[in-house]
Amino acid sequence: MELTWQNSFPGVWETFIDPPRHTLTEFSGVPPATSLRYASPLPRPERISCNKVGHHIVFRIPLLPNEYLFGGGLKFQRVSIDSEVYHLRMDHSSGVDNGCSHVPTPFVATTAGFGFFCDTIDDVSLYMATAQRYKDKDRIIERDRTTDDNWRCNNPPYFMEIAVNAPGVKAVIFQGESLRDCICRFNLYCGGGFLPPKWGLGVWHRTNIKMDARQVQELAADYKRHQIALDVIGLEPGWQSKAYPCSYDWSKERFPDPADLIGELKKQNIRVNLWENPYVSEHSSIYQELKRLSGSHLVWGGIVPDYALPETRKILKKHHEKNHLDYGVSGYKLDESDGYDAWLWPDHAEFPSGLSGKAYRNVCGVLFQRFTTEMFKARNQRTYGLTRSSNCCAVSFPCILYNDRYDFHEYVTALCSCCFTGTLWCPELHDAKNAEDFLRRMQLIAFSPMVLINAWATELRPWMFPEVETAVRQVLELRQQLLPYLYTAFARYHQKGLPPIRSVFMDYGYYLQTDNSAGKLDATKNPYQVVNEEDINDQLIFGDSLMVCPIAPGTKERTVLFPPGNWYDFYSGQLISQGKDRQTFPVDINTPTPLFVPENKTIPLLGKDKQWTLRSFGPDPEPVDLYEDDGESDLYLRGQFQWFRLYPDGRREQIQKEDAQ
Amino acid sequence: MELTWQNSFPGVWETFIDPPRHTLTEFSGVPPATSLRYASPLPRPERISCNKVGHHIVFRIPLLPNEYLFGGGLKFQRVSIDSEVYHLRMDHSSGVDNGCSHVPTPFVATTAGFGFFCDTIDDVSLYMATAQRYKDKDRIIERDRTTDDNWRCNNPPYFMEIAVNAPGVKAVIFQGESLRDCICRFNLYCGGGFLPPKWGLGVWHRTNIKMDARQVQELAADYKRHQIALDVIGLEPGWQSKAYPCSYDWSKERFPDPADLIGELKKQNIRVNLWENPYVSEHSSIYQELKRLSGSHLVWGGIVPDYALPETRKILKKHHEKNHLDYGVSGYKLDESDGYDAWLWPDHAEFPSGLSGKAYRNVCGVLFQRFTTEMFKARNQRTYGLTRSSNCCAVSFPCILYNDRYDFHEYVTALCSCCFTGTLWCPELHDAKNAEDFLRRMQLIAFSPMVLINAWATELRPWMFPEVETAVRQVLELRQQLLPYLYTAFARYHQKGLPPIRSVFMDYGYYLQTDNSAGKLDATKNPYQVVNEEDINDQLIFGDSLMVCPIAPGTKERTVLFPPGNWYDFYSGQLISQGKDRQTFPVDINTPTPLFVPENKTIPLLGKDKQWTLRSFGPDPEPVDLYEDDGESDLYLRGQFQWFRLYPDGRREQIQKEDAQ
Repeated sequence: MELTWQNSFPGVWETFIDPPRHTLTEFSGVPPATSLRYASPLPRPERISCNKVGHHIVFRIPLLPNEYLFGGGLKFQRVSIDSEVYHLRMDHSSGVDNGCSHVPTPFVATTAGFGFFCDTIDDVSLYMATAQRYKDKDRIIERDRTTDDNWRCNNPPYFMEIAVNAPGVKAVIFQGESLRDCICRFNLYCGGGFLPPKWGLGVWHRTNIKMDARQVQELAADYKRHQIALDVIGLEPGWQSKAYPCSYDWSKERFPDPADLIGELKKQNIRVNLWENPYVSEHSSIYQELKRLSGSHLVWGGIVPDYALPETRKILKKHHEKNHLDYGVSGYKLDESDGYDAWLWPDHAEFPSGLSGKAYRNVCGVLFQRFTTEMFKARNQRTYGLTRSSNCCAVSFPCILYNDRYDFHEYVTALCSCCFTGTLWCPELHDAKNAEDFLRRMQLIAFSPMVLINAWATELRPWMFPEVETAVRQVLELRQQLLPYLYTAFARYHQKGLPPIRSVFMDYGYYLQTDNSAGKLDATKNPYQVVNEEDINDQLIFGDSLMVCPIAPGTKERTVLFPPGNWYDFYSGQLISQGKDRQTFPVDINTPTPLFVPENKTIPLLGKDKQWTLRSFGPDPEPVDLYEDDGESDLYLRGQFQWFRLYPDGRREQIQKEDAQ
Repeated sequence: MELTWQNSFPGVWETFIDPPRHTLTEFSGVPPATSLRYASPLPRPERISCNKVGHHIVFRIPLLPNEYLFGGGLKFQRVSIDSEVYHLRMDHSSGVDNGCSHVPTPFVATTAGFGFFCDTIDDVSLYMATAQRYKDKDRIIERDRTTDDNWRCNNPPYFMEIAVNAPGVKAVIFQGESLRDCICRFNLYCGGGFLPPKWGLGVWHRTNIKMDARQVQELAADYKRHQIALDVIGLEPGWQSKAYPCSYDWSKERFPDPADLIGELKKQNIRVNLWENPYVSEHSSIYQELKRLSGSHLVWGGIVPDYALPETRKILKKHHEKNHLDYGVSGYKLDESDGYDAWLWPDHAEFPSGLSGKAYRNVCGVLFQRFTTEMFKARNQRTYGLTRSSNCCAVSFPCILYNDRYDFHEYVTALCSCCFTGTLWCPELHDAKNAEDFLRRMQLIAFSPMVLINAWATELRPWMFPEVETAVRQVLELRQQLLPYLYTAFARYHQKGLPPIRSVFMDYGYYLQTDNSAGKLDATKNPYQVVNEEDINDQLIFGDSLMVCPIAPGTKERTVLFPPGNWYDFYSGQLISQGKDRQTFPVDINTPTPLFVPENKTIPLLGKDKQWTLRSFGPDPEPVDLYEDDGESDLYLRGQFQWFRLYPDGRREQIQKEDAQ
């Protein structure tokens, strides 16, 4: 099939294969960011072919030597995705990377700066350097497994194939100068990253579901007594008269005067965020209105309103504005929209918008983010919240993804891999087995998009483990000092599309030495001699340049694979690595999270006294650029912000947006 | 949609929803067994409704109180399937029960004696007592999770919904007097179970892939030296000139004179079985012929011939007959036909028969069994082999399912659950961590449809752990003594559809006390308070009545949940349980596999001296019926067999087939 690619923006080409289908981006209703227009033009990659095969549209893309693949939705085991197959599906994450996840973004990017996006809500399968075709047989070498020790089960990475199970589709290709550049273009295409309110980057505490207003006040007082700045209290299901399914109405018993509570907390600079899920109780004040706008099936006995209908969103907005926003509520958390097959509506459920159950599942979380964001935008007010499901088209909505798994390694991998999905992810702190477990998890969330203690089912508090209290305070203080640096990283996300927290692969490409020898045969553990190419799923770039290497609970040492260039220890200022080496450091409970800085970078810290401390590394340190605005309104969208440059010697100068690094 | 059910056989109703689609049963080409005509007629269950919804045909079946569900393909974690959702797909088994497995049978059966079979190769999703509809809202009770401790995430088991992603489908319902009766009808409908040759029930040893003819002879001599009767040697990939992909031609270096080798082994009563996979090397003598009959994609560089074309099967038959069967080969093992996404052809691959890659994947293993079975049938010779993928329509083909996982509990669960899928499954012995591990695995395979040591990547031998040699010999001797009993169980599988090895639930229903209280909330491990209803995935019925309770390696005790009735210990003859109780026994390395016998049953053992020992249990023991025929030809299909009855006092009398129990 001959494809007609339309060069919509520099480095971006679109094609439409008829008949027209629902696109993902239509559900967010967000156009590409205007800054995409100013990207450098680049030649269109010429290597894509396309065929209609049965019920599928199949794109086939030859790979260059040493071209490595990323993306394909959120991952919990690996960041790089070569030699894998993913059948994308919106689902809770089971811990297995098979394409089912709560962020099943149909987008793949490569270290050659190439990106491919199927802008569709239909089923997409990704064959990542696995498919071999008969017509390429002359390139493919057969090996005899009995006699050739170089036999391997993984196919050589010659091609990727992407199959969409639909008669029509919209596809978009991105070309950048690097993987990072390609991702930036992709994020701008999806609307550009969101900018959270400043308060959103502080400490969050979500309450036990049974907590009442008095206990919430006590919680705030406890934080004050322990001198830990608390910025947001998240109320879990029990704020409502009914939950699972939900009423969205305040519980008169537990929260008799919500306006008063929220006002009191606001005086202490604490915002309130409300939990909800999309299943509506017959006891809700809007049940009758929503009934005829809901799907064929129930979840936990509740109706499932169809957010794809403007009328549904209007009813919910009106109710939420009157009952929550007017009282001062600052945002929401949407739970269970990713589904868990056994209690969600089935794929064949019918929704009044005409979407199938499966399609609606794919966009429910996006539509929730859309209508909640719109409510706050109408008030010239920023919001920051959480969602259990999303997709790339929601990149400009200020919601963070989370889930209910609790494995430390999975958490860190998701933090690394989300940057390729058009979303940001955060681990939560629910509970801790012991003081060390608590500290390590605390140190992890301190380098996340949201510092979130979620004690919905526990009584967890930051001061519960006195033996690590000092270390906990230290990392929270460091987070506090890094806030302008982090806030600037979010401004970059908004203006340039660069995720504020991301995999080291995004900045440095796939810099590992790959070992092409066969995997080690083991009759019971690796019968196919599967070669798992080395991956880095536990090193993050935080903001402009800081490399964060979280320490897992129970660990006695930490291995770091340094990217190219000279690297310095953040704490001691010493040169640690001259790049591309592997170093292992002993760790104990007193070891803070290892942080490394590339040569000549400057990290700005803002003290409680509002004085800057600039930490510079290497012989010839560069200045650092910082972003500033009012921190809570939408006036920045109308140009009310500024960039300034801090020099290592303390000088400060205002700069133009275009000059900011 | 109004369904028209046609009463094809007693207790069996078929319906056809247009347009016509490929059925599963058309690929096996096997008609229902004639004995199905003699089943008792039963009324049609009236409770099914059906709708076309978007791309789906949806069947909805209300459940009766205490009606429990089984089937939905092979399982590795649980046997009962209430509250689960399965999207059936042919795939290797990852250990997670999500519908992907190498036996994705689209069939569900219940303890009310009801069975539902979607005879289709299209996608089927099973919502097992999970879906709730708005129109049933009056039956469904909402609970507030914050205040009601009886809130549970699992939906009450009111309905099952089965969705087929196709415009047309053939569906079949079965009605039996019990779960067991329903399964028997289903197996007969699929052609009736296979009867293996007697030699197939002895000991099998598969060789290391690099082994040559001389080493194979030595292996046979080693078995003889150690006085362990070896019945089948399976040659793994290295018998071929090329493998992975395969030539199907003998390696001239390793096997210069296969006819001589096979003849020599035959003299020692040892049969030879050949390994292959469906991927063809360009070095194969039939590569040129198969090239144009193959799919669009390669696997390990090999072409994938389309077994759905009669011409392909003809070429393979001709080659195999001339190069293998004429030399005396007794059967085959087909590997890798279940696929592992990362190296299989993709779902969108094109096959010359017109089947999609996904559809072909579903039937490839069935078609292999079909053509290999046909080759032997044409010689009036029985075969017995292995296949890595299958489906219910292959119930009459003498192939056992296996895979490459190695977890003991998964093995036992699969042995239990396969009886609901129209297939038989066997664990393999690949390797052992220590003597106890070896013994427990040996004791497990001794109660499997095939006693299979697969040393393809090791040098494992039954005598490698002298400290457990006596125990190993004991269980192999017991297997030997039980052969007539087991062979009779296979005859029952053939004549009545009753699986020779099966879950206790099949014979006794779901006899557990269910606990309907909510699951225990745990913030990190069970945030949804998931209630896992009790399951029995480690107790088998072996043959007519023996309950086998395998002991897992490393276990210090074994808990048994006794079905109703009085139960006796097989070894001591003592009354152990009066039914429906839970007993825990201490075990050590000297404890043989616990075996229990229901009251008044008689277990016949045949000694090396051809003398019967009848072990009777309880005050009023019944006689036992046994089946006999020539053990290796197909003459039994023309009536050349007999049934006889052994009385506890030693009397023996010939009986009619119709009278046999």
